[in-house]
Amino acid sequence: MDSQFLEKLQKNFNIVFHDVSLLDQAFTHSSYVNEHRQLQLSDNERLEFLGDAVLELLVSRFLYTQYPNVPEGTLTKLRAAIVKEDSLAAFAKECHFDRYIALGKGEERSGGRERVALLCDLFESFLGALYLDQGLEKSEAFLEQVVYPKVLSGAFSHEMDYKTRLQEILQRSGDRIIDYRLVKEEGPAHDRLFWTEVYCDDELVGKGYGKSKKIAEQDAAANALVQLEDK
Amino acid sequence: MDSQFLEKLQKNFNIVFHDVSLLDQAFTHSSYVNEHRQLQLSDNERLEFLGDAVLELLVSRFLYTQYPNVPEGTLTKLRAAIVKEDSLAAFAKECHFDRYIALGKGEERSGGRERVALLCDLFESFLGALYLDQGLEKSEAFLEQVVYPKVLSGAFSHEMDYKTRLQEILQRSGDRIIDYRLVKEEGPAHDRLFWTEVYCDDELVGKGYGKSKKIAEQDAAANALVQLEDK
Repeated sequence: MDSQFLEKLQKNFNIVFHDVSLLDQAFTHSSYVNEHRQLQLSDNERLEFLGDAVLELLVSRFLYTQYPNVPEGTLTKLRAAIVKEDSLAAFAKECHFDRYIALGKGEERSGGRERVALLCDLFESFLGALYLDQGLEKSEAFLEQVVYPKVLSGAFSHEMDYKTRLQEILQRSGDRIIDYRLVKEEGPAHDRLFWTEVYCDDELVGKGYGKSKKIAEQDAAANALVQLEDK
Repeated sequence: MDSQFLEKLQKNFNIVFHDVSLLDQAFTHSSYVNEHRQLQLSDNERLEFLGDAVLELLVSRFLYTQYPNVPEGTLTKLRAAIVKEDSLAAFAKECHFDRYIALGKGEERSGGRERVALLCDLFESFLGALYLDQGLEKSEAFLEQVVYPKVLSGAFSHEMDYKTRLQEILQRSGDRIIDYRLVKEEGPAHDRLFWTEVYCDDELVGKGYGKSKKIAEQDAAANALVQLEDK
């Protein structure tokens, strides 16, 4: 493995591999193996298989702990947004992993080094190697630097509905009582309108309306979010 | 939680929960929560979200270690077969989990206790609770009793191709050299037939033929498997 990369891993992430051959394998694409059969190398696909599951557990544990009041459906959407191909490829590029993967000539020529699927697999195979070499907690420490800050900054929160996002933001600074109150309903049954207000610790933070209570609450939460972001 | 169930967990799996409320939550279906709003219970869905990822990592680690020569594609198929709804529901029933889940009346009447999706979720939520209460290695010990023996007995190996299965079986007793030899090819280019023999440590274990080398090798492996199973 390139010594500059080893230094970067140590300097940026405090990672020193005990078994560097695992790292080599993580950065060996099947196209390179196919072009160098005499070397009898292993490609990174089995490590990717393992790393995928390591990532899944760590991200799940993080979300489970970080958002104690967020329902399962939203957690699942958030997790899917974090571990999807595009996101992982972006993380791989941020870590400059793309510079160090060994590719076959054909793969290189056809732009493999920039390919989202390849970079996503690379991020996972790196994590698989890290896990085998240093265990779950060191793998978590890496994600704490690379992935979790993005999650906390709200980069994936569009996957949350407005009520959940509002709850997430308001409860960052501690447990608060968030309360949706139906204040008015009007019109005939088939065309009824509902007005809702949302309160945080008895302070009015947003108003909304809609053709069902649920829509009115989402609208109130969305309006509260707009006002919070203006602050 | 039912004391008989607690005893069973201890007797059969050597599991004693420190925090029994986690176990209670794992066995509380949302339909029960909805019918008992005054109790302010939590259902098992968030634990299921976590347990799903715990299972994914443990099964992946097991397969990765158990089958050092099996390619990623086959590992992925095997994993999918093990963690799919039907399989997990069967594991839940084997552990008699179905007897102890708290259901709402409507869910009970409509046969929820036998529903595959519900039982699958229950197996995952139990695993999520076990992981939170006792960590990864104790969760693994549970799978070592309930899931892995099934995997090793070949219950999911139909997901492997014949060559992989043959390799898996032959290498159970140590590293062996498995070798496919093309022994004959016949006929015109557009309708050619290939004959292959497969050897294990230079001993002939199967013969096959087909319209491509690949098919001939799969056929040889399939025939070797039949003969091995007859022994």
